Amino acid sequence: MTPSATPAYRRLSVEERRSQLLDAALGLFAHRAPEDVSLDDVAEAAGVSRPLVYRYFPGGKQQLYEAALRSAAEELRQCFDEPREGPLLPRLSRALDRYLAFVDEHDTGFSALLQGGSVVETSRTTAIVDGVRRSAAEHIHQHLGVTDPGPRLRMTVRMWITAVEAASLIWLDEDKQPPVEELRDWLVEQFLAVLTVTAGRDPQTAALVTALSADG
Amino acid sequence: MTPSATPAYRRLSVEERRSQLLDAALGLFAHRAPEDVSLDDVAEAAGVSRPLVYRYFPGGKQQLYEAALRSAAEELRQCFDEPREGPLLPRLSRALDRYLAFVDEHDTGFSALLQGGSVVETSRTTAIVDGVRRSAAEHIHQHLGVTDPGPRLRMTVRMWITAVEAASLIWLDEDKQPPVEELRDWLVEQFLAVLTVTAGRDPQTAALVTALSADG
Repeated sequence: MTPSATPAYRRLSVEERRSQLLDAALGLFAHRAPEDVSLDDVAEAAGVSRPLVYRYFPGGKQQLYEAALRSAAEELRQCFDEPREGPLLPRLSRALDRYLAFVDEHDTGFSALLQGGSVVETSRTTAIVDGVRRSAAEHIHQHLGVTDPGPRLRMTVRMWITAVEAASLIWLDEDKQPPVEELRDWLVEQFLAVLTVTAGRDPQTAALVTALSADG
Repeated sequence: MTPSATPAYRRLSVEERRSQLLDAALGLFAHRAPEDVSLDDVAEAAGVSRPLVYRYFPGGKQQLYEAALRSAAEELRQCFDEPREGPLLPRLSRALDRYLAFVDEHDTGFSALLQGGSVVETSRTTAIVDGVRRSAAEHIHQHLGVTDPGPRLRMTVRMWITAVEAASLIWLDEDKQPPVEELRDWLVEQFLAVLTVTAGRDPQTAALVTALSADG
């Protein structure tokens, strides 16, 4: 209990307080493994008492973690939000720039979340992460101008998204090398390369690759 | 308790019995989600009593699951065991054939394991899976004849391995379509394509791609 923080209690609305606690939690979960974050840490970071944290999140750390994860997922979804204008590969580059900045800012939490086996991992957290992956795939299909992607195109896009996740984890693990701009360009080139491979097996993808080459 | 199974107790050595229980567990975990397998199921599949299963695996289902996973991991490692003779891409094809046959045979368990959020997932199960990934990467480096892979080559190989995992999960999800031979050839083509992209940024990989083209 931090007595000096008490007066501040009254000043925030329920929604503001909740959002303040979530921000504090997200800040902690971004840079520490979930097992290294306690409710006391969250209370301290937000300048409130532990009972107050419990009043907002009666499910304790697990509930806070999931709420923070949902808020991070929303932030990630916004990274993919790119106007559907101009050549496609530069759009992908810009979305990747925002995504990689997110990875950079949430390094430890991002690794803990995706490396699995975490104490806070449940079917709910997995569903949140899968929702982000699905959203990324839908964005890509929309930018490709495809309303009904066939199985080969869908598989290619999902494989590339997984490869991007793997690259992000390795990048964090290797002290953020290569430089982020190189990583971004490399991932865009891989996208085009795997689409081109699939084009040899799938007319829908072949038409896209032809359109992409004329796009530049 | 199955009284008719009792006489069989005496005939097996400790090692044989343990291995029989593990086989029974692996058979169940391969085709059901871990939460749908009980110790009673394992006892019944092995034709023994539940107390006997507990005598061998006092840690209960979690211990059995981890032991079954270790044995599956060993089986997977053997899939990658390919003589270092002849052109490289056909070697990769043969290893993928064995790997995809494993995925086919352990479908539900493979999905449950890799999709995360499972009740039996712990840092130990994650470490076992990561061990298999590392082993796959080492095999690929050895076949490429590289003793000291640089960061760009390592990242490319790990990204491709992750993409293969993703493809396997999607393939199971899509009722094992496309046919396994097509999936295998497609994955080999992707391997060459992503190596070729990296070759533009990394002299070590460029030398490998040149050697691979002359390899035929």
